[in-house]
Amino acid sequence: MPVRTPDPDPSDDGNGDDARREPLGSPFDQATGPAAAGNPGWLSEVELTEIRRRMPILYVEAVPVRTDGMGAVVQVGILLRATPIGEISRTIVSGRVRYGETVRDALFRHLENDLGPMAFPLLPPQVTPFTVAEYFPLPGMTAFHDDRQHAVSLAYVVPVTGTCEPRQDALEVTWLSPEEASSDALAAEMEGGRGTLIRLALASVGALR
Amino acid sequence: MPVRTPDPDPSDDGNGDDARREPLGSPFDQATGPAAAGNPGWLSEVELTEIRRRMPILYVEAVPVRTDGMGAVVQVGILLRATPIGEISRTIVSGRVRYGETVRDALFRHLENDLGPMAFPLLPPQVTPFTVAEYFPLPGMTAFHDDRQHAVSLAYVVPVTGTCEPRQDALEVTWLSPEEASSDALAAEMEGGRGTLIRLALASVGALR
Amino acid sequence: MPVRTPDPDPSDDGNGDDARREPLGSPFDQATGPAAAGNPGWLSEVELTEIRRRMPILYVEAVPVRTDGMGAVVQVGILLRATPIGEISRTIVSGRVRYGETVRDALFRHLENDLGPMAFPLLPPQVTPFTVAEYFPLPGMTAFHDDRQHAVSLAYVVPVTGTCEPRQDALEVTWLSPEEASSDALAAEMEGGRGTLIRLALASVGALR
Amino acid sequence: MPVRTPDPDPSDDGNGDDARREPLGSPFDQATGPAAAGNPGWLSEVELTEIRRRMPILYVEAVPVRTDGMGAVVQVGILLRATPIGEISRTIVSGRVRYGETVRDALFRHLENDLGPMAFPLLPPQVTPFTVAEYFPLPGMTAFHDDRQHAVSLAYVVPVTGTCEPRQDALEVTWLSPEEASSDALAAEMEGGRGTLIRLALASVGALR
Repeated sequence: MPVRTPDPDPSDDGNGDDARREPLGSPFDQATGPAAAGNPGWLSEVELTEIRRRMPILYVEAVPVRTDGMGAVVQVGILLRATPIGEISRTIVSGRVRYGETVRDALFRHLENDLGPMAFPLLPPQVTPFTVAEYFPLPGMTAFHDDRQHAVSLAYVVPVTGTCEPRQDALEVTWLSPEEASSDALAAEMEGGRGTLIRLALASVGALR
Repeated sequence: MPVRTPDPDPSDDGNGDDARREPLGSPFDQATGPAAAGNPGWLSEVELTEIRRRMPILYVEAVPVRTDGMGAVVQVGILLRATPIGEISRTIVSGRVRYGETVRDALFRHLENDLGPMAFPLLPPQVTPFTVAEYFPLPGMTAFHDDRQHAVSLAYVVPVTGTCEPRQDALEVTWLSPEEASSDALAAEMEGGRGTLIRLALASVGALR
Repeated sequence: MPVRTPDPDPSDDGNGDDARREPLGSPFDQATGPAAAGNPGWLSEVELTEIRRRMPILYVEAVPVRTDGMGAVVQVGILLRATPIGEISRTIVSGRVRYGETVRDALFRHLENDLGPMAFPLLPPQVTPFTVAEYFPLPGMTAFHDDRQHAVSLAYVVPVTGTCEPRQDALEVTWLSPEEASSDALAAEMEGGRGTLIRLALASVGALR
Repeated sequence: MPVRTPDPDPSDDGNGDDARREPLGSPFDQATGPAAAGNPGWLSEVELTEIRRRMPILYVEAVPVRTDGMGAVVQVGILLRATPIGEISRTIVSGRVRYGETVRDALFRHLENDLGPMAFPLLPPQVTPFTVAEYFPLPGMTAFHDDRQHAVSLAYVVPVTGTCEPRQDALEVTWLSPEEASSDALAAEMEGGRGTLIRLALASVGALR
């Protein structure tokens, strides 16, 4: 399985192929027009590719969970995605932090992009992540890798209370028990070592056995 | 101001004076009847007083907060209470963990007792506290003291989404900004060093300046 | 395998069999003499057994680790112990917090008792545990159980820099890699569900895969 | 007082003015020669300035502390620095994470640069920071600001056990009590809001009152 980090929200990479996903004229529409021209945070695909080989790129990631009335995690949401070459892979909510954007805003934006506007995520009051996942182009330096870039990801467990309707057709959310979510079988299907990230997430909430 | 730890929920100390607060026959009614007779976790007031001088007592505490749509803390809930001798003091949600009860259950029980059944607290997925507050009978060993006992408290920040209606007449919830809640003025009114606890709580969510 | 929580330091349970381990006349000598008579925190074996069926008992636990020069965990120390009936079991550093003792002091005392005076543990600056492990007499309520009591344990990862020489003959420290320490094989040998505790410990330091 | 983020280690910004600080030919010598030519992570001053206006830049920061034998924080190390225009300001250990470098390695490198090779810092086993500090060019978005860039900093409390001898002449380490370090007076002298960062650091180790 290819080990590229999926780009669950191409729009925030500024490579201009997501007109279908965000309304024209939105402040996040980086593809065209005055917003792109006037926003120094806008990056062309070429520029981003260039920077990715020279700077660590800051990401946020979220493991969506369902909790019971007492706050205990009972299910974990895993995203199913078709890669451009038609392979199916599994991942979690993940995306870049933009210039000028708070970590909290980035987290909310990617949750909404990947889970839809009716997911009603409960962002934690803490901005401290449960772990910092370091993705390197070369596998083996850490548990995580991404052949495209050096990414450093702040990872959060986020309860969602609504209905998940991924915006992209190819994306689907599957809810698994903590046991299933921490299994070797699932880990083998996860991109870039994110099976480990799910285990760390479950451990942080005491739901790993 | 007296430095006794308030006992916001006398019922869970088993000293039998809260018939007005919990329905007779409830599993938590420790004062009378078969439940008391059959439950080894039931402690008479004399027994509890005795144990308090010989064992550290496990507590949970909660700093109730209001958050904005992005999870950031915007207000802190402080409880106002009249002590038995008629003094007014300020505190937070606090109470003992019972034999056989999980930390999560104890936290929920005390939140409901102190904030009422319509507060709708969002218990965190983590059971890890933001701090462990150690209360000693002798002031000065730590920032916290309680002339009645050695108590060790697991402290949590808990967003509440509903309406707070404290069950006891003497109890009222005041909502303060993080700045007000961390002020020296408020700290001076808080019992047992809990002004420090509120600052640690605000720091844990990045809301302390 | 029996699921009783080991009592790695009988002395702190006040059951009076550790004259060989603590100097006579020390404030911790609970077995005999004026200290015992005058210290309300002293508990006879009968009293402790009684309290254990009526109150949650506060514990501290430590997973000893070796770190490399950059702070990364490279080995985990597991204690080997012979039970009174001659079975061999594995555990970690664990023991009760005494009346009047800080969590930090209790942690240090049990580390010294279980690892010897030359272990040179580096206690963390934080008193916040990586998890709160709840042991119930009835298995299944949580990942942890102890047929003797309801214990609530604050658990820490503690780097040790010296030589471990357990004070008790029956005790030995084995150093394992994070992979070995988180294996199912080891978990099956650990008492009371502590295999899970080791996994949570490794996850908290990013050393679980 | 100017609110620019100090660049305590100019070398890691690749602006080439630190020949005096790192041996020629070191892998970190980005200024000249084959290393610079062959390392895509090398950035000229112009390039870095450009990227700083378009991407959030990942930093690590460390609050150096002295601990007592039990791990409790007793002193906080504050750096004194002369700015290029001759003003004196106070700060903590702080610097950029390079392409291809782990967070842990970056933390160690900046500790050594700012505190000298004999400081013997004890890096924590956890890579999870006590907070994530977000510095924006525009003051007021968070407690932190940096008129040069949008920086996101992973902040750690790091005990140091040796002697601090800052490598740069203009730099000196002052050791303060937790009370002094959290005072308003000190906060007023700290750059970019780092007085708040020190309070959050102290809170995370329970040393804030």
